Amino acid sequence: MVILMDDHMVHRGHGVFDTAAIKKGHLYELHQHVDRIIRSGTVAKIVLPFDRETIRRILIQTVSVSKCMNGSLRYWMSAGPGDFQLSPSGCHQPALYAIVIEDQSLFDSRGIKVVTSSIPIKPPQFATMKSVNYLPNVLSKMEAEEQVAFAAIWLDDDGFIAEGSNMNVAFVTKEQELLMPKFDKILSGCPARRVLTLAEGLVRVGKLRGIRVDNVCIDEGKSADEMMLLGSGVLVRPVIQWDEKVKGDGKEGPISKTLLNYILEDMNSGLSSVRVPVRY
Amino acid sequence: MVILMDDHMVHRGHGVFDTAAIKKGHLYELHQHVDRIIRSGTVAKIVLPFDRETIRRILIQTVSVSKCMNGSLRYWMSAGPGDFQLSPSGCHQPALYAIVIEDQSLFDSRGIKVVTSSIPIKPPQFATMKSVNYLPNVLSKMEAEEQVAFAAIWLDDDGFIAEGSNMNVAFVTKEQELLMPKFDKILSGCPARRVLTLAEGLVRVGKLRGIRVDNVCIDEGKSADEMMLLGSGVLVRPVIQWDEKVKGDGKEGPISKTLLNYILEDMNSGLSSVRVPVRY
Repeated sequence: MVILMDDHMVHRGHGVFDTAAIKKGHLYELHQHVDRIIRSGTVAKIVLPFDRETIRRILIQTVSVSKCMNGSLRYWMSAGPGDFQLSPSGCHQPALYAIVIEDQSLFDSRGIKVVTSSIPIKPPQFATMKSVNYLPNVLSKMEAEEQVAFAAIWLDDDGFIAEGSNMNVAFVTKEQELLMPKFDKILSGCPARRVLTLAEGLVRVGKLRGIRVDNVCIDEGKSADEMMLLGSGVLVRPVIQWDEKVKGDGKEGPISKTLLNYILEDMNSGLSSVRVPVRY
Repeated sequence: MVILMDDHMVHRGHGVFDTAAIKKGHLYELHQHVDRIIRSGTVAKIVLPFDRETIRRILIQTVSVSKCMNGSLRYWMSAGPGDFQLSPSGCHQPALYAIVIEDQSLFDSRGIKVVTSSIPIKPPQFATMKSVNYLPNVLSKMEAEEQVAFAAIWLDDDGFIAEGSNMNVAFVTKEQELLMPKFDKILSGCPARRVLTLAEGLVRVGKLRGIRVDNVCIDEGKSADEMMLLGSGVLVRPVIQWDEKVKGDGKEGPISKTLLNYILEDMNSGLSSVRVPVRY
């Protein structure tokens, strides 16, 4: 698949994107992911190429014709092709692009290592949206890989824990609370939001004492009983080491593993409000 | 011209670019522009697709086969095509792309209006390089256009004057000094650098008392006798209004006009060190 070189997304980064998982012929949380690309597009001042319902229909049809039953749907909204100027005033019309990536691999529950990112975090206006301006995220991921780690963790300008290269983070505190950084300066991840809802089940059965979305300082994060990464690519991935600090006994935490099972169950057989069937 | 959708520059902004002017069959300051894309690529951790001399030769050949005598050469270095992951580890090899844009239009010396940008400026590590992560620049330009202005001016985190959406700024102070903001948090523009050299001629003939590269506070900038934008697209463009503040008598300043003539002369018939002939 190719895109025109003079598309404003290619040469100026004037495009936004999102990803929805395809699981057993269903699109997981499509509604939330379509809402989010529309919000990102609004911040990026990209005129909607189609109305919301048409975008939704095109995305489902794309998965349908691909015949893909398991994988992911990635889609972009761009200011569109035009001239090579900085202003999008020469762009003829906005564009929607979509691809389907087949992926049969299972989600991995093995614990991973993260490091603290030295790459500057984006200003909140840009960190809260999903644009293709992901160079800081790329460099942060590369920094992690250089240290044989899975992801790098950003701190915000006030020194609070922000997010991973392209994932949210969460903790289980010593008080058995699920603790997640506030979303005002970082991307509001769909899996992170979903985990907040699913974790209520763990509170009901007494495995968690509570759920809190708050500022999280680095000491609180590093000393937490459990740490996990949350994102479409990993769902819930236990973290067993942050920089030199090994978490707990160096084994995957029980809450992280349970939350991964909860979200997998939700994807496989959850409510129809989060699972849109694709007619192949 | 098309580019693969799975190129890391397209979907993650993992690419850098630069532009060199083509004037009367010569590439203006090609050496400086090639050096700069290599510096940008180093910061973006893009492996050089070719050595410096080969890149230079490919760029000149591209202009040659295009037969374009006047216009601009735009070129990109990308981490290259691969998969759709955040990490570039799946990218097969880095890529160099180049296009030639014919443009016969003359540089305009009419004064324009600028506004103060409300879009957050990039962190210095990203503002000092030329990557395709230009969404902040796009939004800043759009903000200017909404106010019927030509460009928006960024202030840095300390409140000093930084740069325009994709141009440097300079001032002529009440003391007849040419004053330009320091380049430690902004892009070191080739035309801005060249103007600093060419302006020495104005000092010699007594039209300027000196040249200073320094922190510039907003009051000093707004009360300066002259203000100008400097960039490949405009060369030297006089600013006659910043927000509600009209500069001087609302007419283009004499130093701005002289500097535009100097740089035009330099492009048309300057030293061979700044003009690389293209063999068509």
